[in-house]
Amino acid sequence: MADMTETTPGWLTSDELDMARAQMPILYVEAVPVRVNETGEVTSIGLLLRIGTDGTINRTLVSGRVMHHERIRDALLRHLEKDLGPVALPLVPASLQPFTVAEYFPTAGITPFHDPRQHAVSLAYVVPVTGDCRPRQDALDLVWFSPREAASAAVQGEMPGGHAVLLKQALAHVGHTF
Amino acid sequence: MADMTETTPGWLTSDELDMARAQMPILYVEAVPVRVNETGEVTSIGLLLRIGTDGTINRTLVSGRVMHHERIRDALLRHLEKDLGPVALPLVPASLQPFTVAEYFPTAGITPFHDPRQHAVSLAYVVPVTGDCRPRQDALDLVWFSPREAASAAVQGEMPGGHAVLLKQALAHVGHTF
Amino acid sequence: MADMTETTPGWLTSDELDMARAQMPILYVEAVPVRVNETGEVTSIGLLLRIGTDGTINRTLVSGRVMHHERIRDALLRHLEKDLGPVALPLVPASLQPFTVAEYFPTAGITPFHDPRQHAVSLAYVVPVTGDCRPRQDALDLVWFSPREAASAAVQGEMPGGHAVLLKQALAHVGHTF
Amino acid sequence: MADMTETTPGWLTSDELDMARAQMPILYVEAVPVRVNETGEVTSIGLLLRIGTDGTINRTLVSGRVMHHERIRDALLRHLEKDLGPVALPLVPASLQPFTVAEYFPTAGITPFHDPRQHAVSLAYVVPVTGDCRPRQDALDLVWFSPREAASAAVQGEMPGGHAVLLKQALAHVGHTF
Repeated sequence: MADMTETTPGWLTSDELDMARAQMPILYVEAVPVRVNETGEVTSIGLLLRIGTDGTINRTLVSGRVMHHERIRDALLRHLEKDLGPVALPLVPASLQPFTVAEYFPTAGITPFHDPRQHAVSLAYVVPVTGDCRPRQDALDLVWFSPREAASAAVQGEMPGGHAVLLKQALAHVGHTF
Repeated sequence: MADMTETTPGWLTSDELDMARAQMPILYVEAVPVRVNETGEVTSIGLLLRIGTDGTINRTLVSGRVMHHERIRDALLRHLEKDLGPVALPLVPASLQPFTVAEYFPTAGITPFHDPRQHAVSLAYVVPVTGDCRPRQDALDLVWFSPREAASAAVQGEMPGGHAVLLKQALAHVGHTF
Repeated sequence: MADMTETTPGWLTSDELDMARAQMPILYVEAVPVRVNETGEVTSIGLLLRIGTDGTINRTLVSGRVMHHERIRDALLRHLEKDLGPVALPLVPASLQPFTVAEYFPTAGITPFHDPRQHAVSLAYVVPVTGDCRPRQDALDLVWFSPREAASAAVQGEMPGGHAVLLKQALAHVGHTF
Repeated sequence: MADMTETTPGWLTSDELDMARAQMPILYVEAVPVRVNETGEVTSIGLLLRIGTDGTINRTLVSGRVMHHERIRDALLRHLEKDLGPVALPLVPASLQPFTVAEYFPTAGITPFHDPRQHAVSLAYVVPVTGDCRPRQDALDLVWFSPREAASAAVQGEMPGGHAVLLKQALAHVGHTF
């Protein structure tokens, strides 16, 4: 997940965030951006292209922290707008019931999810987007894949830390397994 | 639920439908049309106004049979277009996981749901609609209610056969209980 | 799915069932029998071993029709007892919300699910069983697989008609993708 | 929610917890303990009786924090054992998909959920218990209610902070609305 250092008053400084990360699970939201057709079928999945700190190319989902006093819906919308731009027109789900909860542990192997920086617990949603996506911030690009391509070894291999697993869970939830 | 006699070749005649209804559960889909705001929150619920065969005024959800060789998604879209008109722009869900399954029995009291004509099993979905709703067919009108109004005794009293229960289940699913 | 010819009065004769199958979707329930540990984690999945009419060996999930005037819960329990024996002690879910709905079409390729005999719509549940399983009826044996084995090409290859897809959807729902 | 001060090394001291609570959402799990019959139907709901710090009598669900490096499943089991005793035999769900997510804000009115101490985000599960419940810690008693009683104004009035809402959402999820 991208580092979410924020400077809004009342939110955590980098140091405080580091301390919190060592002491409690950090709440995240994660969105799988999809295009759907008229009958709701997922026709493609949008993955962000990022350059990791070590220079490797990663594909990621939309994700980020939920801030103090921020609703899950507002955090979802904020991260969708931050990652996909202001005119993506994401359809934040009417129900807060996530399709799954991903538990990223700093120790690898406890769950399929791993984040060396922290213990993060992420509520995961499939989010149809109907507008024009223009990645911002640290994302280089947003690339759309068919469900089959998204589940391919090539793409899965570019999604470390368990994001590949989460994407497959999302695909299974919308009826696609490969 | 409205009677769904169809004349498309391969589908059931009225007589055949009557016979089938006496012998097996009939598969339905049901949609709760909602308006949502930018963060996905349900701001209002659309209920169809119908005149029952006995002259009583009923408020109903969008519902109807799934036909032979018809996908659930296609049945949902067909009934949404039939009941809300061609420009309602319903967002059929990406996942087929319903928020609940309602079992209408011809005998009252077995479940909260009752349909004297048949044993119907209905997959229920919350469906945001973004366009302009123009009820067609036998519906007189579509009226939008706030979540609180929709859960009120007055509105609930106009939704017989367990539809009031299903509406409250839908409201609870999207975070509203009263 | 196994043929569910029943002779209880009021249910369908074989001929009537054939006719119904040609004219409307037939409602099924499907259960993925699992063993769980104390924390609810799925440790193994039970698959029935059957000999198909053409002599091929198939592995299947617990499945069967919902009868007229039968509740989904009762159909689930009936099929679990029929397939796993009287002391399997299945834990039928408290909520009727299925993890997915599988649509078996007589025509291959419309969905990942295919049943040459009929259009069947199946509500799918993960069902922990805590007792002793003794397959009855036409099943030869019940074999327990680890999640990884169940998702393997060898086992998946013995589950035709889309049951392999449904099993993978169930595994994804409980946190396992491979 | 009960205060969960813990003294295990690596977990938060009371002071650190206070600081964290002022700065980020705190992750909780919440369980609705239920008795189910053979077909999975919820026959009763268990509510803990507690004396609030101000002397008022409250009924609560099982709830508590998720600790650093603790899985949701393990947190659920820990809190169930802590609140219901060691032989309650709770059936922790096979899937981590909660029926809803409750957002408790320190400011009342933002969501139906309110916790003056903190911003808590709670993953909510329905958990059948099959053993003998013996409340421990600060709970005086565990009382079983029928679904109808649990939804009554009398019981709902003893569940402040939105727990009444969460209970009604749980009841709706398992098919009961009143």
